[in-house]
Order: sequence, then C-alpha cells, then structure tokens
Amino acid sequence: MIDLRSDTLTKPSQIMRDMMSRAEVGDDVYGEDPTVNELEAYAAEITGKEAALFVTSGTQGNQAAVLAHTQLGQEVIMDTDAHVFIYEGAAISAFAGVQSRTLPHDRGQIAIKDLKAAIRSDDVHHPETGLIWLENTHNRGGGAVLPIEYLKEVHHFAKEVGVPVHMDGARIFNAAVASGVAVKEITQHVDTVQFCLSKGLGAPVGSILAGDQSFIHKARKKRKMLGGGLRQAGILASAGLLALRSNIDRLAEDHQNAVLLAEAINTYTDLSVNHPVETNIVIAETDQSSRTAQEWVELLAQKNVKIIQYKAESLRFTTNLDVSKKDIEKVIEVLKEIS
Amino acid sequence: MIDLRSDTLTKPSQIMRDMMSRAEVGDDVYGEDPTVNELEAYAAEITGKEAALFVTSGTQGNQAAVLAHTQLGQEVIMDTDAHVFIYEGAAISAFAGVQSRTLPHDRGQIAIKDLKAAIRSDDVHHPETGLIWLENTHNRGGGAVLPIEYLKEVHHFAKEVGVPVHMDGARIFNAAVASGVAVKEITQHVDTVQFCLSKGLGAPVGSILAGDQSFIHKARKKRKMLGGGLRQAGILASAGLLALRSNIDRLAEDHQNAVLLAEAINTYTDLSVNHPVETNIVIAETDQSSRTAQEWVELLAQKNVKIIQYKAESLRFTTNLDVSKKDIEKVIEVLKEIS
Amino acid sequence: MIDLRSDTLTKPSQIMRDMMSRAEVGDDVYGEDPTVNELEAYAAEITGKEAALFVTSGTQGNQAAVLAHTQLGQEVIMDTDAHVFIYEGAAISAFAGVQSRTLPHDRGQIAIKDLKAAIRSDDVHHPETGLIWLENTHNRGGGAVLPIEYLKEVHHFAKEVGVPVHMDGARIFNAAVASGVAVKEITQHVDTVQFCLSKGLGAPVGSILAGDQSFIHKARKKRKMLGGGLRQAGILASAGLLALRSNIDRLAEDHQNAVLLAEAINTYTDLSVNHPVETNIVIAETDQSSRTAQEWVELLAQKNVKIIQYKAESLRFTTNLDVSKKDIEKVIEVLKEIS
Amino acid sequence: MIDLRSDTLTKPSQIMRDMMSRAEVGDDVYGEDPTVNELEAYAAEITGKEAALFVTSGTQGNQAAVLAHTQLGQEVIMDTDAHVFIYEGAAISAFAGVQSRTLPHDRGQIAIKDLKAAIRSDDVHHPETGLIWLENTHNRGGGAVLPIEYLKEVHHFAKEVGVPVHMDGARIFNAAVASGVAVKEITQHVDTVQFCLSKGLGAPVGSILAGDQSFIHKARKKRKMLGGGLRQAGILASAGLLALRSNIDRLAEDHQNAVLLAEAINTYTDLSVNHPVETNIVIAETDQSSRTAQEWVELLAQKNVKIIQYKAESLRFTTNLDVSKKDIEKVIEVLKEIS
Repeated sequence: MIDLRSDTLTKPSQIMRDMMSRAEVGDDVYGEDPTVNELEAYAAEITGKEAALFVTSGTQGNQAAVLAHTQLGQEVIMDTDAHVFIYEGAAISAFAGVQSRTLPHDRGQIAIKDLKAAIRSDDVHHPETGLIWLENTHNRGGGAVLPIEYLKEVHHFAKEVGVPVHMDGARIFNAAVASGVAVKEITQHVDTVQFCLSKGLGAPVGSILAGDQSFIHKARKKRKMLGGGLRQAGILASAGLLALRSNIDRLAEDHQNAVLLAEAINTYTDLSVNHPVETNIVIAETDQSSRTAQEWVELLAQKNVKIIQYKAESLRFTTNLDVSKKDIEKVIEVLKEIS
Repeated sequence: MIDLRSDTLTKPSQIMRDMMSRAEVGDDVYGEDPTVNELEAYAAEITGKEAALFVTSGTQGNQAAVLAHTQLGQEVIMDTDAHVFIYEGAAISAFAGVQSRTLPHDRGQIAIKDLKAAIRSDDVHHPETGLIWLENTHNRGGGAVLPIEYLKEVHHFAKEVGVPVHMDGARIFNAAVASGVAVKEITQHVDTVQFCLSKGLGAPVGSILAGDQSFIHKARKKRKMLGGGLRQAGILASAGLLALRSNIDRLAEDHQNAVLLAEAINTYTDLSVNHPVETNIVIAETDQSSRTAQEWVELLAQKNVKIIQYKAESLRFTTNLDVSKKDIEKVIEVLKEIS
Repeated sequence: MIDLRSDTLTKPSQIMRDMMSRAEVGDDVYGEDPTVNELEAYAAEITGKEAALFVTSGTQGNQAAVLAHTQLGQEVIMDTDAHVFIYEGAAISAFAGVQSRTLPHDRGQIAIKDLKAAIRSDDVHHPETGLIWLENTHNRGGGAVLPIEYLKEVHHFAKEVGVPVHMDGARIFNAAVASGVAVKEITQHVDTVQFCLSKGLGAPVGSILAGDQSFIHKARKKRKMLGGGLRQAGILASAGLLALRSNIDRLAEDHQNAVLLAEAINTYTDLSVNHPVETNIVIAETDQSSRTAQEWVELLAQKNVKIIQYKAESLRFTTNLDVSKKDIEKVIEVLKEIS
Repeated sequence: MIDLRSDTLTKPSQIMRDMMSRAEVGDDVYGEDPTVNELEAYAAEITGKEAALFVTSGTQGNQAAVLAHTQLGQEVIMDTDAHVFIYEGAAISAFAGVQSRTLPHDRGQIAIKDLKAAIRSDDVHHPETGLIWLENTHNRGGGAVLPIEYLKEVHHFAKEVGVPVHMDGARIFNAAVASGVAVKEITQHVDTVQFCLSKGLGAPVGSILAGDQSFIHKARKKRKMLGGGLRQAGILASAGLLALRSNIDRLAEDHQNAVLLAEAINTYTDLSVNHPVETNIVIAETDQSSRTAQEWVELLAQKNVKIIQYKAESLRFTTNLDVSKKDIEKVIEVLKEIS
C-alpha cells in the first residue's frame, strides 16, 4: 500500500523509536524535562526566536498563538482557505472569542491593498484588528510557498499599523527547502511561527510554537488551559529533535516526487493539476475527468494507492517520508494503466 | 441643515412624543408592561410569527438571535458585507463563540451553489453549520431588496440541510414597500427576523425580534444577559407602535426621493451611483471625481447638507422621514451649484 | 394594590412624563444627543469620576464593566450572593470568558484575609485575578450598606495587588442616604461604579456606568456590542436627570418605611426579620412561621399587598417611591389582621 | 533524592520504554492507530462505559467533558476546591463560557441539600444548571475517597433533576484500590469520567475520558479543537495500556506508605496531619510548627527529600511509584533527625 493521503501518516523509523526509548525525561509541567528543554532551545535557535514551546499538534500551537496574541472581540485577518479557518473547528471564535476576517488570496497571498482595506479604524462599531495570519506552505493552495519578498511587504505593513503577524508554518520546512533558504530567513519576517514535527519531518506527535519570551510565557499558560501541559514529554521531544536534525534536507525528495507525479497526472490521465508544484502537495481537478473524485479515490485504493478527495471536484496527493521514488514510479504505472 | 447621514437620525414627532408621555406602563422584566405586550403581539402578527420581543437595537436583536439559534463553535453563513460582520464589534464571535463564514455576494445575494459548498460535513475538523444569515434590505449593497424568489430558494435549501435562516431586516419595511408586498410575504421565508423601529420608521429607540414561541423564550433570556431587560419600556414601545401603524407606507416617499437624488448625482456631478436605487440608500462612488470622499463630505456640510463617507472612495446619502421632497430639491440645487 | 415586590416597579410621575415628552434629542450613537450628554456629565460629576455612560440596565452596566476591565480567562472575585453571579444569566462567563471566584461574606463584606488568599500567584495552572467586585447596597444581604471604612480597606488592598475594584451600586444612593454622605464619598474608593436610575430613583429605564476616560471609552464599545447603543435616548435620559435631581433625598422615607415594616413583622407575625434594616429592603424568614413562603405571598396578594418569595424560606418586602407611609400603615394593619 | 512532590513525576520503567519503542502505530486523527484503539476499548471496558477517548492530560479530558456536556451560559456545580476550578486556568469559563457554581464541601462531598438549593429554576435571570462535577479522589481534600453511598445519592438526585454528572477521576484508581472495589463499581454512578494514566499509574503522558457513544463522539471533536488530535499516539497509548494492566494493584503500597508517613509526621514533628489518610496524599499543616511551610520545603530539600508547599500553611507529600517503602523509612529518619 502506497499512502499519499497525507504527510501526517508517516511512521517513526527504528532509529527514532530507539531514541524515544532512551530519552531522558522529567515532568515538563515543572519545567524539568531535559529533552523537551533541549528541543525548545533548538527550535528557538533555528527559527531565530527568543523562545519556543512544544505543543501536541499544529492546531494546539495555532490556538495557543491566537489566545496569546489577541483579546476577546478582536479580528484576525487571514485568507479564506486558511487551515485555522477551515479545519480547526471554529476554535479561535469559540475559545478566544475573535472574529475571522477572511480575505481572497492567490495561493496564500492576500493582496496588500486588501490587507490595508481590512484594518479597522477606531470606531464604536468595529472590532480591533488583533492579528494578521499567514500560512506557509499554503495547504489548500497546493503546497504554495509564500515568497520572501511578499513576507517582507506584509511585515513592513503590519509594523506600520502595529498589528503582529503569526505564521502557520505547519510545513515551513517544505517552504525553506523549496526556496533554498534557512528557515530563519523566513521566520524573521513574522512575530511568531508554528511548525509541525509530525508532518513532513516524520515525528509521531508534536509541533512547535516560537516567538519572543513574553509571548511564549503567555502561550505556555494557554497551552495548559488547552490540556497541552504534558508530563514526561521527552519521549516525544526526542523524536522531534531527531526529525529536525535529520529529516529536513530530504524534503527535497518529496518535492521531486511531487513534480514527477504531477507531470504524470497531466500526461496520462484526464485529471488536471493546475497549480505549480512547489513542494509535496499535488491537487488534481476532476472537472474534466470521466470519473468523479470519489470514483478516483476508490479505484486507486483498489490498486493499493491511497489518496484523499479534497473538495467536491479535486483530489490531493501528498508525498512524504514513507513514499520513495520507486513508490512514485509504481503510482505512475497505476495511473497509466487505469487511464 | 438637511441630514442625509442615516435614517437613524430622525427625531420623534410631536404626536409620537405625546403618545410616549401617555403610555401605559409596567415592569417589563415581570412581563407587566401592557404597551410592550401590545407592541410584541402586533409585531408578531404583521411578521406572521408566533411571538416577538422588543429589544433596544438592531444589534441587540441580532445578537440575541445568534445566541438563541446557535451553539458555541458553530459556523454562521453570511455575506462578506453583512452588518453583523462589519458593524457589530465581532460580538457574535466574542459572545456566542461562533465563526462567521463570509461568502461573496451580489447586493446581498449569495449564490445557492456557494451556500451549498459552505455547508459543513460531519468531520472532526469542521465546525457545524448553525445558521444562515440574510440582510434585507442590504445596507452595503445600496439598500438592495432581496427578491422573494431568492428567499424561497434559500429557504428551500436551508430546510433541506436542516439549518435555520435568520433575516437581519433592520430595513425590511423598505423592502416590503419597494416590493409592494406585506412584510409577512417576506418573513414567511425565514425562521426569524429582526427589524428596526428606529430607522426609517422614526421611533427614537428599539427593534423587534420575531420567531416561534420557543425561539423567543430563549431569546428573552439572552436579551436579559445582554442587559436588554427594561423596566417601564412602554414609553418606548408606544413610539414603536405608532411607527408601525403610521410610518410604513410613507417609506415610498423616501424611495422616490432617493431616485431623484441618484439621478441628480449622475446628471450634475462627477460622482457616480452605480447601483439600482431600490429603496432609501444611495451610494455614490468618488473614483471618477475630482474631489475625494472627504472633500465631498466637507463641502456639502458647508452647504448645510450632511452625508457620510462610506468606504475609502464612496459616499452614502440616506433619505428619511425628516427629509422632504423639498429638501431633496434643495440638495439637488446644491449639487448643481458646486459641480 | 400596594406593590412591595421591588423598587423597579415604580411608574414615572406626570412631571417625569412631561420632561420626557419635551426632551431635546439626537442620535446618541453619533454622540449627538444633548440630554444623554448632559446626564452622563452630571453622573460623572456626582460620582467624582472622569466620565460616565448611559446604559439600559444594571446588568448591561455590569457586563460592560467586566468586558472593559478584564481579559478572557481571568478571575473576578465577588461574594457568593452577588447579583452579577446569581441574577445575570452567567453572562460574565458566557460573554467575557472570566471565572467568578465567589467568597463567603457577611452582608456583602468579604473578609480582607479571604480576599488576600484568593489573589492568584503567577503560575501556569492559575487564572490571573482581574477584578474585585463589591455590591452596595447588598441586595441579598437585605439592603446592607458597605461601611466606608471597609471600602477603604478593600481599596487599599486592591491597589497593593494591582487589581481594579468595581462597585455594583445599583442602589448606591440608598447607601449614601443611609450613611448621610454624598455618593462620591463612597465612589472615591472604587475604580468604577454602576448605579440604577430605575430602582429607588424612579426613572422608567436606565443605569449609569462611571469611571475614568479610558475605561468609559472601552465600555462604550462593549455597550455597542451588547446592543445598548441607542438612538434618541434623550427621552430616557431626561427621566434619569430628573430622578437624580429630585429623588435622592426622599429615599430616606423608603428607609423609614422599611424600619416600620420590619418592626411590625417582628411584633405582629411569626415571620422574623433577622438583619438590621439599613435601607429599603426587608427580608423576612418563614422558618418559624406556620405558613410557608408561598402561602404568605398568596395571602398578602388577596389583601392587595404584593411581595415576592426570595429563597425557599424567605420573603422580600421592598419599599419604594410608589409606596407612601400611609400605604405602609395599611400593610401593617393587614399583617396584624392575618396574624 | 526522594521525590514526594507529586505522583505525576514518575518516570517510565524500562519495560514501559520497551513497550513504547515497539508499539504498533497509525494516524489516530484518521482513527488508524491500533494501540490507541486498543487502549480506548480497554478503558471503556474497565470503566463500564460505551466508549473512551485518549487525551493528553487530565485538564484536556476535563475541558473536553465540559465542552461536550454543556452549552454556553450554563452553570456547573462543583466544590470550592475542585481541580477544574483552582488549577485549570479558568478554562471552562474562557472556552466553554460556563459559570462555576462552587459549593462548600467536606473532603469533596457537597451536602445533597446544598446541591438541591443550587439547581436553577427556569427564570430569565438564571443560567441553567448544566452539569454536576465530582472529584475522586479529592486532591485538596487530602486524597479523600468519595463513598459509594454518597455517589449513589448524588446520582439519584441528578437523574431526578435531569442534570448529568461528570467525575474528575484523575486518581480514581487510588479510590478503587482504597475501597477494595473495581473501578466500574464507582463509575456506574456517574455519566462520564476522566482518569489519568500519568499520575499514580506511571505512564509518561495521557488520560482517558469515558462515557456513552454520543458523548465521546462530541468530545472527540472538542479534543481536536483543543489540539489533542495526535498522529502516531500509539507510542503513548502503549505505555497507558501497560500502566492500566500492571500498576493498579500496587497503588496499595503507596497508600500504606502514606499512612506510615502521616503517622511519623504526627509522632516526630510539630507538623500536623489532620485528615484521614485514605490514599497517597498527605497534607501536613504548619500552623503549630516552629518553621514556616517554606522553611520546611527548603530544609527537607537539603536532606534530599522533595515536597511542595500547598497552601500558605500546609505541605503536600505524595507517595508514588518511584518511592519505595525503604525510601519512606529514610524520609521518616530525616523527619526524626530534624525535629
């Protein structure tokens, strides 16, 4: 079975399991887990931030970020397809009491003039603008990378209006590898960032939230409220450290595999990949196909290839650590065969 | 001074003042104010609903409606320009903990296919869809009337997916008069409706929320939480009754005045009114004008005509009970003069 | 019918109705209602605060205060019987997302050592303490007056720990009259205060929230979110001004009437008033009576005297503007007669 | 170093580490982690509930329970010392928007008559009562066990008034072992229960929430919102399974050690343990001691014994898996020595 449903599905390698079984641990609620402390220090260092916090998921990192950045009744500006808006159960409104101001976008990029128009003036009718939200890479934009130039512009504008910028960087290492820059070249243009250890990097559980000291101090309390204060979390943190130290550069393979796959889809099938394939996500549209999205999912499953239906008329293929170039070649054979 | 800033600015007439000063009252928190009870019964009757509730403002009626209809963490579908999203301080997220799912629209009409695509499936990542929101007339759409045919379609769809429909009908009597139908011909297509007594109808304070008995029972408690449980509210309710009984038909004059005004703007100035003028709101764009929006506001004020800047490059003129056809003719003279 | 259920039940006098019918008005959302502005200025002056805000009820004033003072996830310290905890539909938790830390009390006075023990330290498990709440007079404490000496102590302590103090002074004028001091002698010891125009003072609708400029600026936005932004509110404000100017001193009569009533209850009936009667509230216990609380309410109603059952075994008599000394004498006759 | 600060501090044993390193895993957000599924099924079975959910902490289990049981603006009845009120950052008010109605208690037992008096009637001023909360064993009550007879009474009453009962059973296995009953003998008297794998049972991370199918279905979505949807969580679940299968009976040793320790404290020191020692928690009061609580903590630390200060004048000693009877004898020697 070749599983392209998501890069969250990867299983820890034997060496990662060995690391976990030997991890030095303590009670992290007391701040005494040395492996968690090491991971947090390392994560802060590579993102160029003062401090970092281990959380159990990207959603938890994002929620803690909103709770730490905003006040009840403020507005958060984001794109209409942001993960935090579509896939996090409306939690930022339910828990933090903030309103999502969703704006049109081009693969994650909101036009600066739209950002400007969305900033609220001081008026008794208006919520205050509390946060600007970016997602990089942009999942529903087909793994799109936000250009550094764009980040600079947003950051410059945000400073001007005094609004902080958070990056949902669940797949930020895909962005960094695709751009050929260190991750801190990206994160220097945002106030805070969340990234996942359990997506492309292959750890079983966990994400990181990074920012300045006072932000992380606040976020630590919010994490406790969310139930993310763990005890001997070093077990998980050791896998996270290994993931960060070993699995970043190899993301390039996932990207190459995604390109191969997209080309094959466009060449051999009546599906169409309409977006540039910059990282590890390939969105194929079914609107020109003789099969529905659901039929495609079922047919490929019969051939031992798992993918997911994405929207009503699209499919998502996600390359990942557990899928080799050989596997992709097999998938391409299957695509040829069934077309 | 001719004041076209809003139809909320109208002052109570002498006869309305007399009614208020003679109103029979009691403590409405105890349900003992006969004038409030009469107003609520009358409002229920004309909207064709089982029950109605007097609230102090359109915002309070809208907020009580969201609190009574939804559960924490649900999603409310509305258009991107809805009053409840733009002008109510993010209260539905802050207080009710729900997420606003804003969709593109044409003068208040969201395409049915977009509504369909926005309904959430039962998935652990998704908020449930709790409410569909319509605004009629649509303020930022230039006082646009939602066609009955459209309401039927939305209602039919909403029933199919089991989601209630609320109408922010702050200016629903403008819609009814413009369409030449009784208001209940409109409200039969929604589960609940809020309308204002203090906009075109000329009462000093107050709005109505109407729906079925169990909804209004819930909303009454939510109103109390919002601080809208008043004591001898019959003073205000008497004005509301008069407004409903005397001031509906005359909205036709406001609409005629608005048409005159729009024609004059397009004829004599370098402003442009690009929308059909269906009711009492005229939005004039300044993008082709030699003057900025702010300059227009100031210039007209010098000539004793008050209007408001609406967006960065638009102005709003709102005809109302305190502005006669003669006044409009004077405004037109001013427009000619300064063009 | 002599109505002792509450001091909220009073009906506006003819002179008050005349004031209302002649009130100069404007749109208060635009800040243009001269009578509201006059009332707010006057209320600020007599409470010795920088600014004041007209709200439609005590609940709305209290909720706006919590929303303006606190942040989501903080704790508000109050007594176990506070109106805001018992009678406001849990709104401070529902809307502001704060936790009520209720402490034992003696007629509204929480021991300073209990306050101290309840202040939260900076710990990842703890909410921050955001506000200390006092109620004066204390409703469920039988109209108890908080001594100035006690207010000083609380204020001193609160400053020391950097936590603001809000007073729910719905009946603060009863406290002032009973203590023989100007209301600002009381309010100088709290940061913010809410008082009602519609209780002992006899206006039909409305309350005031007072505090410093920046607090009132924030509270004004919160009021809008709660739906308390009214249009020609001067109608109501004129009654409020009259109430403040004419009806404060006469509260002494209500207090004398309450004392007469309490003495008669203890002399002629098997009910017992166990608390000092300092203001206009008399709580009579039924635990030594041959009749249940409900039987008392019904029996008195047959004799044209209205009271309310308070807890399982107690009754509340509230003297007020619409009940003269003669009326009280009639009530005493009834009590004698049925005992 | 002998660490008696908490039973959360225990480190996973070698066998537990081996289990984790060999655990079969999958993506639990997709429901595909076999070890998590096994743990959830086993936890449901031993608690006698239809279903169970793995969560990352007791706080997360409690928060998901409140979110699944209640609606915004309801009230939750609990004791004044409940963990959820004191140590969870006011999250139930911040996130679920419910009010904590805290009642006096005797070591976790709220008198039934107080429960009765706290249930809210249907009144526009009142929040609804949404949930009754019990904690067993009761932490701040000194590890007190709630008697089965008491649970029956509460359950009977709760059914009568139609309010569900949740048990914070973080240390419910201590209660079961101390009472000599199977845990399901306890949990049959509550609707839902949360228990910790990471306290006395010795797993590094995790708790369980159990209840009926529809409750767990809801709670699963709430867990996702809280960021508790993990990926290859089988790593942690394998430790949880081992903990449940191997470490329950041995809690009796912790309880015996606690009794020994309490007797020694009362015999050899000027501290006083005033509560019955039923499980693994010993609270020693310093009010009769020549040393302050802080001095005791420091002095014992110098002697390689770690404890925590609990309240201003008390200390907590918690026996646990990593502290043997020999260790306790050493602690007793230290106590003798420094007295």
